[in-house]
Amino acid sequence: MATTTDEINRAVLERLHAAEPVLEDVLSAGEVVPGFGPRTALHAGPAVAWDEMCGPLRGAVVGALRLEGWAETETDAVRLIQSGDVTCGSAHDHGAVGPMAGVITPSMPVFVVRNRAFGNIACCTINEGIGSALRFGANDASVLDRLRWFAATLGPGLGEAVRGAGGMDLRTIMARALTMGDELHQRNVAATSLFVRALAPHLERVGMSADARGRIFEFLSSNDQFFLNLAMAAAKASADPMRNVPGCTLVTAMARNGTVFGIRVSGTADRWFTAPSPVPQGLLFPGFTEADCNPDLGDSAITETIGLGGVAMAASPAVVRFVGGASVREALAVTREMGEICAGTSPYYRVPALEFAGVPTGIDVRRVVATGIAPVINTGIAHRRAGVGQVGAGTVRAPLGAFRDAVAALAAAR
Amino acid sequence: MATTTDEINRAVLERLHAAEPVLEDVLSAGEVVPGFGPRTALHAGPAVAWDEMCGPLRGAVVGALRLEGWAETETDAVRLIQSGDVTCGSAHDHGAVGPMAGVITPSMPVFVVRNRAFGNIACCTINEGIGSALRFGANDASVLDRLRWFAATLGPGLGEAVRGAGGMDLRTIMARALTMGDELHQRNVAATSLFVRALAPHLERVGMSADARGRIFEFLSSNDQFFLNLAMAAAKASADPMRNVPGCTLVTAMARNGTVFGIRVSGTADRWFTAPSPVPQGLLFPGFTEADCNPDLGDSAITETIGLGGVAMAASPAVVRFVGGASVREALAVTREMGEICAGTSPYYRVPALEFAGVPTGIDVRRVVATGIAPVINTGIAHRRAGVGQVGAGTVRAPLGAFRDAVAALAAAR
Repeated sequence: MATTTDEINRAVLERLHAAEPVLEDVLSAGEVVPGFGPRTALHAGPAVAWDEMCGPLRGAVVGALRLEGWAETETDAVRLIQSGDVTCGSAHDHGAVGPMAGVITPSMPVFVVRNRAFGNIACCTINEGIGSALRFGANDASVLDRLRWFAATLGPGLGEAVRGAGGMDLRTIMARALTMGDELHQRNVAATSLFVRALAPHLERVGMSADARGRIFEFLSSNDQFFLNLAMAAAKASADPMRNVPGCTLVTAMARNGTVFGIRVSGTADRWFTAPSPVPQGLLFPGFTEADCNPDLGDSAITETIGLGGVAMAASPAVVRFVGGASVREALAVTREMGEICAGTSPYYRVPALEFAGVPTGIDVRRVVATGIAPVINTGIAHRRAGVGQVGAGTVRAPLGAFRDAVAALAAAR
Repeated sequence: MATTTDEINRAVLERLHAAEPVLEDVLSAGEVVPGFGPRTALHAGPAVAWDEMCGPLRGAVVGALRLEGWAETETDAVRLIQSGDVTCGSAHDHGAVGPMAGVITPSMPVFVVRNRAFGNIACCTINEGIGSALRFGANDASVLDRLRWFAATLGPGLGEAVRGAGGMDLRTIMARALTMGDELHQRNVAATSLFVRALAPHLERVGMSADARGRIFEFLSSNDQFFLNLAMAAAKASADPMRNVPGCTLVTAMARNGTVFGIRVSGTADRWFTAPSPVPQGLLFPGFTEADCNPDLGDSAITETIGLGGVAMAASPAVVRFVGGASVREALAVTREMGEICAGTSPYYRVPALEFAGVPTGIDVRRVVATGIAPVINTGIAHRRAGVGQVGAGTVRAPLGAFRDAVAALAAAR
């Protein structure tokens, strides 16, 4: 008896729904990220050559090379990359993700999230907070000093606390946060607060000076988006077991490098289907215009890939305004629309305003092409020039061309 | 030109809307609660004699007298109260509030919340968490030990941290929490998490052993209702400047002692209008029936008095199910119905699901009587017998008779 595509998809979606993402540790990327060469810099989205990189990604790569002590100046850094002495590659190819530029080099501490239902791990860097940050391409002394503090204090402190807690169940925190107005992409204040409150007794017992611990608490208290990077690692760990199932038409990753927007589909394994990355629409901070906006950037669309972020807009009335939407009604409509391109709904991640219905899960490239409805992504907007930083927040629609190419490739693979 | 009742009410409501409740300290009740006699036990609701007290209130009073060392046995305690050697009185008469039995004796640490717009303060005990607790009338060794730890460690630790923070702005936390699914009576998980996360850097710097601080963090991490008592003190501090305005028909307090349900109205000063306290309707924990339920109990209806709790049901889809409601739609309908008996809406406390409309504020006894719509209160349900504890959660309607009596008294006072 032939198995239909819908049957294959349903079985694959069960893997997503069975995911149990648990934060198990915080380690340096060089220790834990698989296949990390001695001089490698990973970045968000599909792999891209230096000449094709957008401004913020270039700025972040240069900053990371200086952080590692591989280069002193920008000129040095560019030479190292162009000569191949430093390899750049896609974080997704190493079981990792990063927001915006998403640059990961060996000394950076990363969250280690294990999907305990399947055993696979996914990693993500630690969120730097707002203002000047490497992920927007800033690489001045304040940015590098903060990253040095991450490596010396924050990462080891969080790691010790997380191990002391026996791991932190992220699925429960994310499910609760979704009932508290987070969509876990552009809004993470509930998840961050729940996480910090649960970790606090273990942080208090970390073998560091009270001053070091105090600075960690201050950092956690001042960064409402802290949990984003945990949600990203949890989403990646949850989605990865869906990969590489012949005939399956569900999306397993969406990611942007600021030049192209790429998607991966289960039935075509690790091939990226790409299209030029669109510029997000939304609210810009005062003094900026659309001409300042970089095309969409970052691995954070892995949250939408599992039904969060823009797909779960109905959960987050507050984010609707932040990303330039008009009303709560509009938010409900977005999530309902996403239901039309998805194969199921989550048994865990539920939306109070929809009478606790599960968020849509399992973006089916066939449905996207048939309906012309592209996934909605809630996103930060980076300035085109490295280092200027965030200029706003908004939404972007994944480009339909990538989905059409995926459908064609799946058909050819039969 | 004659001033109309509506004009008077509007002016009084402006006082509520101008409130700026700030947690300034945590001190022992004997130090800070006004008019605390050397041997006084305050309790929730209107003052009630021992013979009229319900089971949980009796259990709590006995426990408090043992905690203070005034009595060793229950028999001693009863004798002290019946002889008048220990005075019982209404917490509201001393600028204080307490949940359920609401018993306050001098050694208990209380939150000190100042309404910085008017200078008045209000106090509330610290929430004990779920399970065996004095507020439900339990008075065994575990309950008294916890209260001793409150007095020795938790209260002083929180006080030092709060002073170190320069006070904690409760209005901002409450407004945020209302957009995160709390209604700040039966659900406080967002407010608790925001509060703990904001206070953590200051707690970390408290001059106690790491072990003592660790136990404080553990307690804060394990009690999702921790913030309730802060919301109550904030509500009392916010509502008190509305008191004692001739001709004003707005409610300034609602409180129950488990025997009667009482309301105070601005135009009739500190007079309680009472009616028998109704038994809440809701969901009971397994093994309990309605025959186990004590009539409604506690000062926590001060939250509904300022537009939170049941009045803000639309903000909290999760609480609807916890208190036995059917659907999110029902929650929206409750808040809309409360709007019919209120004089205005809050400029700060807003509900995302109602397109960020403010919660209804200023319960007008005339409107209650004219419409027959009684305020809804979200409430815990205590067992009739002292010490059994919470048997469920539900809602209760304030008894209309109290409002009719208030309208009659206001008419007579003209």
